[in-house]
Amino acid sequence: MPSAILLLSCPDQKGLVARLSGFVYERGGNILHADHHGDVAAGIFLSRLEWELDGFALAREEIAPHIEALATELGADWRLQFSDERPRIALFVTRQDHCLVDLCYRQSCGELRGEIPLVISNHPRLEARARQWGAAYHWLPITPDTRREQEQKQLELLRQARIDLVVLARYMQVLSAELLAALPPAINIHHSFLPAFAGARPYHQAYRRGVKLIGATAHYVTAELDGGPIIQQDVVHVSHREGVRDMLRKGKDLERVVLARAVRAHLESRVLVYGNKTAVFE
Amino acid sequence: MPSAILLLSCPDQKGLVARLSGFVYERGGNILHADHHGDVAAGIFLSRLEWELDGFALAREEIAPHIEALATELGADWRLQFSDERPRIALFVTRQDHCLVDLCYRQSCGELRGEIPLVISNHPRLEARARQWGAAYHWLPITPDTRREQEQKQLELLRQARIDLVVLARYMQVLSAELLAALPPAINIHHSFLPAFAGARPYHQAYRRGVKLIGATAHYVTAELDGGPIIQQDVVHVSHREGVRDMLRKGKDLERVVLARAVRAHLESRVLVYGNKTAVFE
Amino acid sequence: MPSAILLLSCPDQKGLVARLSGFVYERGGNILHADHHGDVAAGIFLSRLEWELDGFALAREEIAPHIEALATELGADWRLQFSDERPRIALFVTRQDHCLVDLCYRQSCGELRGEIPLVISNHPRLEARARQWGAAYHWLPITPDTRREQEQKQLELLRQARIDLVVLARYMQVLSAELLAALPPAINIHHSFLPAFAGARPYHQAYRRGVKLIGATAHYVTAELDGGPIIQQDVVHVSHREGVRDMLRKGKDLERVVLARAVRAHLESRVLVYGNKTAVFE
Amino acid sequence: MPSAILLLSCPDQKGLVARLSGFVYERGGNILHADHHGDVAAGIFLSRLEWELDGFALAREEIAPHIEALATELGADWRLQFSDERPRIALFVTRQDHCLVDLCYRQSCGELRGEIPLVISNHPRLEARARQWGAAYHWLPITPDTRREQEQKQLELLRQARIDLVVLARYMQVLSAELLAALPPAINIHHSFLPAFAGARPYHQAYRRGVKLIGATAHYVTAELDGGPIIQQDVVHVSHREGVRDMLRKGKDLERVVLARAVRAHLESRVLVYGNKTAVFE
Repeated sequence: MPSAILLLSCPDQKGLVARLSGFVYERGGNILHADHHGDVAAGIFLSRLEWELDGFALAREEIAPHIEALATELGADWRLQFSDERPRIALFVTRQDHCLVDLCYRQSCGELRGEIPLVISNHPRLEARARQWGAAYHWLPITPDTRREQEQKQLELLRQARIDLVVLARYMQVLSAELLAALPPAINIHHSFLPAFAGARPYHQAYRRGVKLIGATAHYVTAELDGGPIIQQDVVHVSHREGVRDMLRKGKDLERVVLARAVRAHLESRVLVYGNKTAVFE
Repeated sequence: MPSAILLLSCPDQKGLVARLSGFVYERGGNILHADHHGDVAAGIFLSRLEWELDGFALAREEIAPHIEALATELGADWRLQFSDERPRIALFVTRQDHCLVDLCYRQSCGELRGEIPLVISNHPRLEARARQWGAAYHWLPITPDTRREQEQKQLELLRQARIDLVVLARYMQVLSAELLAALPPAINIHHSFLPAFAGARPYHQAYRRGVKLIGATAHYVTAELDGGPIIQQDVVHVSHREGVRDMLRKGKDLERVVLARAVRAHLESRVLVYGNKTAVFE
Repeated sequence: MPSAILLLSCPDQKGLVARLSGFVYERGGNILHADHHGDVAAGIFLSRLEWELDGFALAREEIAPHIEALATELGADWRLQFSDERPRIALFVTRQDHCLVDLCYRQSCGELRGEIPLVISNHPRLEARARQWGAAYHWLPITPDTRREQEQKQLELLRQARIDLVVLARYMQVLSAELLAALPPAINIHHSFLPAFAGARPYHQAYRRGVKLIGATAHYVTAELDGGPIIQQDVVHVSHREGVRDMLRKGKDLERVVLARAVRAHLESRVLVYGNKTAVFE
Repeated sequence: MPSAILLLSCPDQKGLVARLSGFVYERGGNILHADHHGDVAAGIFLSRLEWELDGFALAREEIAPHIEALATELGADWRLQFSDERPRIALFVTRQDHCLVDLCYRQSCGELRGEIPLVISNHPRLEARARQWGAAYHWLPITPDTRREQEQKQLELLRQARIDLVVLARYMQVLSAELLAALPPAINIHHSFLPAFAGARPYHQAYRRGVKLIGATAHYVTAELDGGPIIQQDVVHVSHREGVRDMLRKGKDLERVVLARAVRAHLESRVLVYGNKTAVFE
């Protein structure tokens, strides 16, 4: 049975939980999940509310206007999603396919609530892999000279495929500020425990520094390279016996899981960005 | 600033979140934390609600009766605590002191919201340790013949010291059903990942079975040995290089942390028991 | 460059490390890895020795006889493998494909040192999946009446495909003692932290017990159901918010990784079975 | 029964394992543990060898000269320790006592192979805590003007107490290059996952960045602040619900365990420094 999911953030004030739950209850809605958090230091209230549409007094298309009215009173940012919506995802890849295969597999068995109709790459290598899972593959090689033009093509492809979410699944290119401004939300997987080893070749950096753990970080893409709001992180132990190749191998398992968790949380409206941070309602 | 914390469970029904938050809001209370969970399979609604006493329309002593009225309507079990209360804890120990030292240290530095005035043991060994942290120590040796009598003395000591929580911090005796019935809530630390290796000498059992992880479990004590509701569990990897002695050493770190987390959660009214399970609101 | 890998276990005695490394050194071999362990309680010495074939005085086919001579003196069990051998793996599956896809993917990108030419199932469902990765698929439905006959067919298929290792990748059938006796080494993935929740539907058992961690165990298959030597185990935290479906989803990630690690360790001759335990040289 | 432990590193060359184990075997020694590692990229061979003194042909005082002769041939750095030696440890602290209490407790129950006769602090606060565990306490307040003089006093105290290892157990002062040059080996605990959040107030840095994991790092102290060879690291998950105070609390558990593991490994001669890295033989 479909449900409505509201993500909302606003300046903290008395009675917010009561008002939000009252909003649903007075209209006959049955709350399935209610998760609130007050960031006292920042003076911000964050909420995720999920209720059944069945029995709710408002029709789907009427809900957003009513929330808008409430949000205006509260000074709130908000986002509304229905649990039976299927967001459309584009994967950006280069030559490594472990995240591509993992996300497509999870999508195929119902673990990700969405579709993956489109894969864009700056390299021809993964075409067969993408098609194996039923996604269209577009090879758009990028050089300093062609970047602007190719990014326009990327945007055009995203528009045509009505993409809601971009996932940089080991895409070895920096997106221009112009592209970023025009893009739907984008999630990147960085193969280090950010902010350690930002930038290129993090496993090589980690190996040189002699760390005893390697990590992976999934974050929203912002203008600051490797600096966007972090959604998920995890680490795995390494010993002196393990060289860069072992780190690459172990890291792949980490990247897959961390990225999949972040994408899943986003698709289920569990991630609320505030400032340069996220609240992940799990 | 002191706050009120309500733990409540009842049969699931529409509007519970709205009613509970409304109860606080209508009386001028500011909700600090609200955490709800519906166990759909069991048809049970679970809630932890914390609000500031400052500005709340009801005096402390008036709150419980009002909640009782609401709970009767909802068919709810509930428990109310104030954040400035200091529950009184008795530790039961035998010969191993790592949990005793750990809990007393955490109490001394403010990490545990409570007092530890009393240590009871069936062995004389840890008297100096207990006194080092300011707790009274009572040695009550137990044999099959003296069990009944000594358990009566234990109960008398608990009553005199007005104990709210008993912690079996590596206490190597089984409590009789009579004692259990008369006891305040009791938390035990079992040095295995229950239900694996229930009973005696779990590290020896684990070693013989050749497991690659050892665990610790903190649970409420019930009549079924090692069968009560689990509050916290954790594990640590072991390799073939590690014998029983290594397991004992690594396990001690695990036991300390797992027990301390469980005691802390209980003291802050974060643990709600339903059926033979717990919800831990963190 | 190819190397020789020797796994050896024998009663503990003085000078074993010196004799083994001397055996290699005197024949001009360069030791790449040497890992020894004495299980003092069991009085057993365990060793994994890897050395370069390049420059070694013995030809490949001469090595085994020389080791046999040494092993006879020491009373040792041993196994010799060359790093450029490609063991042939058969997967047994039923209806769940996450381990199948994961192992095939890892094989395809070089993470597993071996081939997967054959998939056997008691269910028709995963045929397309298996073929997608280039493996032959044989559907052998099993009923109490046909078990004996179908197991004979399974053995015949294994023989024809010259299979070195069987992996039960979520195969929902118990193997008969006769089949087991005739089988190459077999690794099973059990979706619990054994010995907790042995037998059927472990996630349902775990949910009912209210554990705070769920696990997965990869072990060699023996006549005792879920009782064979454990190779790898791992766990993941679950909270009261997570029902059986969430456990199933989280467990799948765990099963994939734990099984892949165990298979990889076996293929690289890192697992030495002694008694009902394993030493895993990592 | 006492054993000899040799840590040795040298340029990689053929036959090292055979020569080292032969050295012990030819003199009648029984090898208890032998752990070798070749860092192929660096061309370095690393070894930890432990053998029983009982039955060994050389007397204790003869062993070092014989190893020196062998090491000269191999171009090796080495360090020899006997398992019944009791290294003497000085703790440097400021105002936080969790690492102090933890290390002293572990020492008292035999988990750390050494003595802790001395605590030095730039603050008077922890005197009672140190004396509680039987250590002398010296308060040496440090200002820019008195640093040089106080560091001389510190060195004098270390000499008088014949200290073998210094542990900076949350010591909030930077050591001068002169002090460092004159110091025995020193281990520091940094309350972040280095190299992320090097420098002051790492939990505040972590909170601002919105990371989902916080860490702790134990490393040898070198002239480069927070840049020495890493011995141990670990992390713990944090959510958006956890503020800096929660991080501080959770971090304390992490710091205690990570520091204790590093100190224990050092005391048992399990840590071999090469370049700016460590091999930890566990």
